[in-house]
Amino acid sequence: MNEVKIYAPATIANLVCGFDVLGMCLEEPCDIMEMKLLGEKKVVLHSRDGFNLPADPAQNTAGAPLLAMLEELGQEQVGFELTIEKHIKPGSGIGSSAASAAGAVVAANHLLGNRFSKPDLVRFAMLGEKVASGVKHADNIAPCIYGGITLIRSIFPLDIITIPAPALHITVVHPLIEVRTSDARQILRKEVLLKDAIRQWGNIAGLVAGFMKSDYALIGRSLEDVIIEPVRSMLIPGFDEVKNSCIAAGALGGGISGSGPSIFMLSTSQQIARSVEMVMQEIFDRIGLAYHTYVTSVNTQGVRIHK
Amino acid sequence: MNEVKIYAPATIANLVCGFDVLGMCLEEPCDIMEMKLLGEKKVVLHSRDGFNLPADPAQNTAGAPLLAMLEELGQEQVGFELTIEKHIKPGSGIGSSAASAAGAVVAANHLLGNRFSKPDLVRFAMLGEKVASGVKHADNIAPCIYGGITLIRSIFPLDIITIPAPALHITVVHPLIEVRTSDARQILRKEVLLKDAIRQWGNIAGLVAGFMKSDYALIGRSLEDVIIEPVRSMLIPGFDEVKNSCIAAGALGGGISGSGPSIFMLSTSQQIARSVEMVMQEIFDRIGLAYHTYVTSVNTQGVRIHK
Repeated sequence: MNEVKIYAPATIANLVCGFDVLGMCLEEPCDIMEMKLLGEKKVVLHSRDGFNLPADPAQNTAGAPLLAMLEELGQEQVGFELTIEKHIKPGSGIGSSAASAAGAVVAANHLLGNRFSKPDLVRFAMLGEKVASGVKHADNIAPCIYGGITLIRSIFPLDIITIPAPALHITVVHPLIEVRTSDARQILRKEVLLKDAIRQWGNIAGLVAGFMKSDYALIGRSLEDVIIEPVRSMLIPGFDEVKNSCIAAGALGGGISGSGPSIFMLSTSQQIARSVEMVMQEIFDRIGLAYHTYVTSVNTQGVRIHK
Repeated sequence: MNEVKIYAPATIANLVCGFDVLGMCLEEPCDIMEMKLLGEKKVVLHSRDGFNLPADPAQNTAGAPLLAMLEELGQEQVGFELTIEKHIKPGSGIGSSAASAAGAVVAANHLLGNRFSKPDLVRFAMLGEKVASGVKHADNIAPCIYGGITLIRSIFPLDIITIPAPALHITVVHPLIEVRTSDARQILRKEVLLKDAIRQWGNIAGLVAGFMKSDYALIGRSLEDVIIEPVRSMLIPGFDEVKNSCIAAGALGGGISGSGPSIFMLSTSQQIARSVEMVMQEIFDRIGLAYHTYVTSVNTQGVRIHK
């Protein structure tokens, strides 16, 4: 077997109060990738979408992790030919670059007979995030590779913990404006008030406990961000109205997905998640901003190999 | 029944990375209290120890919560006569004031036929903390009343979450120096680096997940405080050596108990906890500081009514 097809899912980083440490894997949307094992040490990329991502592997979020993997394989004469069909729009804030990077390394590892561990794969894939945003972060990569909800307790050394959770239905709205991850990072203050940090770590502890106790009310109460959201939400037109109206429509809570501009909301049923979608659509229709919406659930598997 | 005897246990606030939000209840030491229900609206305090705590109920950590409870009872002609035998040394950093306050309200509630809820009792008892340190905090009160490990996600409104945990053995050393809670609070900076705050909330999330997954290694890795400990540990002679040597002796980790000066360490067995105690004793013997040590375990019940 020297060919594989995989589905690399979207992810939501931060989860409101878990800036840089929490992430959640979604069932939809997914990038589709096909990979062939080559007999020489090179990475060849093809694109089957209209996104004009860099064809030079070293500049591509899927290519850079593959080059790193080849380097770690030393003298072995293998390479990868990868065709990417992206469905997760770059810049949407739902882990588009992470899906490319994670999908590529999971596919390659499969063709190599799974000789790398999941933490190895995360390590390789983070190089793709560095190409995309200049920062090696794992809060989209880890849930994409592990599935479910993950905590990155530490990046150096890498410490990834999976957090069990009850069924959750997720509504995402992607207003078609551009928020660059690097800009969204730059507007953050380097110092925060201790009292705000305390509130934040109370919330993240509550959120983890809520997930693990399947306590939906606690999950909802803990979805509060007093540090990042008040700053970043200013980059997203209609944010406060969307958030308040979705919670009024029955969502547990939610916030900015990653560095935005997508907004996500968690609900206890698909029916509520659909009502929440209508609320989002109404608001952005009124504002006059184009958008995409998704109603999906937690993907507990991560990148999926097509059988 | 108009008399009751109760045992009010010591508690450890903060638990290293959970400043102001986490607390743990200990089996030992315990204050002993005897309370009589009176037929008139007053609080009478007696002390059976040598600690010279204020006899005026309004100035006493056990008295102030009882006065608040009486006020909430309105016209009802009841009162409390309380005899306190403190075994938890005031100023030790293991929740001495909280034990007085929590013990008093649990005893009073028992004599009143349990008409107040646990959150009510926490609310009353926090007034005792205000008398003791000027700040209404609940991170010792909540574990003392609920037992086990508690998270105070929020004080206003009060949101207390119990965190299940595996068996833990705790070693505490109380070096006989004075660290006032108010001083320990004053030396903290009002602002912290965002990158440190992120590391801290990764750790508290890891600690909660570690407790709930019974993952001792994760508990150990998460017992890291990059914000409070580096500042406060300077007030405790020998702190770094105690911490490093105890971990070398097999402890999972630990740190300052509350605002100090007590240091606590968590271990997976009583045998390790006893070795850790010897390490602590050796170090403070060498430094030439008097101390008390305790080897105990998690008290899952909180304040106990004598049957």
